[in-house]
Amino acid sequence: MSSHHIVRDDQEPALIIANGAACSEELLGQLLEWSPLVIVLDSAIERVLELGIKVDVLLGDFDRGFDANFYKESQYPIEIVHTPNQDKTDLEKAFDYLIERNIPAVNVIWATGKRADHTITNITNIVRYRDLLKIVILDDHSKIFLLPSKFEKWYPKNSVISLIPIGEVKGIDSTNLFYPLDNLSLTIGYKTGSSNHVTEDGIVKITHQSGDLLLMECWD
Amino acid sequence: MSSHHIVRDDQEPALIIANGAACSEELLGQLLEWSPLVIVLDSAIERVLELGIKVDVLLGDFDRGFDANFYKESQYPIEIVHTPNQDKTDLEKAFDYLIERNIPAVNVIWATGKRADHTITNITNIVRYRDLLKIVILDDHSKIFLLPSKFEKWYPKNSVISLIPIGEVKGIDSTNLFYPLDNLSLTIGYKTGSSNHVTEDGIVKITHQSGDLLLMECWD
Repeated sequence: MSSHHIVRDDQEPALIIANGAACSEELLGQLLEWSPLVIVLDSAIERVLELGIKVDVLLGDFDRGFDANFYKESQYPIEIVHTPNQDKTDLEKAFDYLIERNIPAVNVIWATGKRADHTITNITNIVRYRDLLKIVILDDHSKIFLLPSKFEKWYPKNSVISLIPIGEVKGIDSTNLFYPLDNLSLTIGYKTGSSNHVTEDGIVKITHQSGDLLLMECWD
Repeated sequence: MSSHHIVRDDQEPALIIANGAACSEELLGQLLEWSPLVIVLDSAIERVLELGIKVDVLLGDFDRGFDANFYKESQYPIEIVHTPNQDKTDLEKAFDYLIERNIPAVNVIWATGKRADHTITNITNIVRYRDLLKIVILDDHSKIFLLPSKFEKWYPKNSVISLIPIGEVKGIDSTNLFYPLDNLSLTIGYKTGSSNHVTEDGIVKITHQSGDLLLMECWD
């Protein structure tokens, strides 16, 4: 795959390529077309360069002994951001980097699959960036984002919508979902709203009173 | 792959093959060797039979329009368990089935990968089976189980140990972990204990006062 992402409008979401399972080249290509800034995490750079993608930023703790400076020459111009802090994951550090640059939104790929600890941490940690950064995690079967207290979006009939509480979420109401939620509470591990779907072509409304609620659009 | 799992001792863990991403044939083969009872969830049966595995139980809601009775003849003897209840996932129904048969332990494969809603629901829902069923979820990069309030196990130096709280977990202490936990609280989405590792060959001790804490042994 070759890609030249020419559009350099910082209003478009940035793209973070993390270090989990690779997605389809189709999804990757779609996202690259609209991403003004491509950030790759740590040793994922090796797999990314094999795909012929131009990388803008390489970020990581580089603790596996590979030479980030090698890429400084071979990928010129590239910004190398060394983030040795072990209190945060490389993905969180990339979010912090974008916030510092005042970039408002980001798509994240390769953040799922492979190690389950990375997958669950990457997915659930997006809740702490509410109001700081609009984050969407995508893979070949899923599109994941944090819901605001009032959410509305048009969906075609039968679209799968899963509501996953990160902790406890109270006072959830829905419109146009097949299994309606009426002032319901959900608690991770005990009661989740997985595998709901849209009743009719049209607007789906989901509101909640408190807590962190992820929406996952999923397909087999 | 062919497999005859001859050992039929119900003290060995059962094996559930769920409907996510397939694991390596090596992991599958290791688990089949010791599993007295093999349960396959719903349409995963098609992928499982391609591998030449003898299945004991086929369980699911069979809502995708495939003919479970077809397998009754082709896989004789096989028990077909139709579980149309939409309030539970097929995996939860399989756990309920094992509890009803007084089987004390189960390994679960193919429960991760593909749809993120299934992955996160399958992993986090095991907490509700505490004291009912000893559950271990395995894939090619991870081994996941719920910790009792006091946990001790021998690990080699540098083994990766991730502690993932399902909700809030309080009063966590550890011995022989590189990033020690001293009466620490962890909260999913906000503070997790991902990517810790073992300091020296020997016993790792992890205790906690309250909440549901998953341990994930992970490798790249």
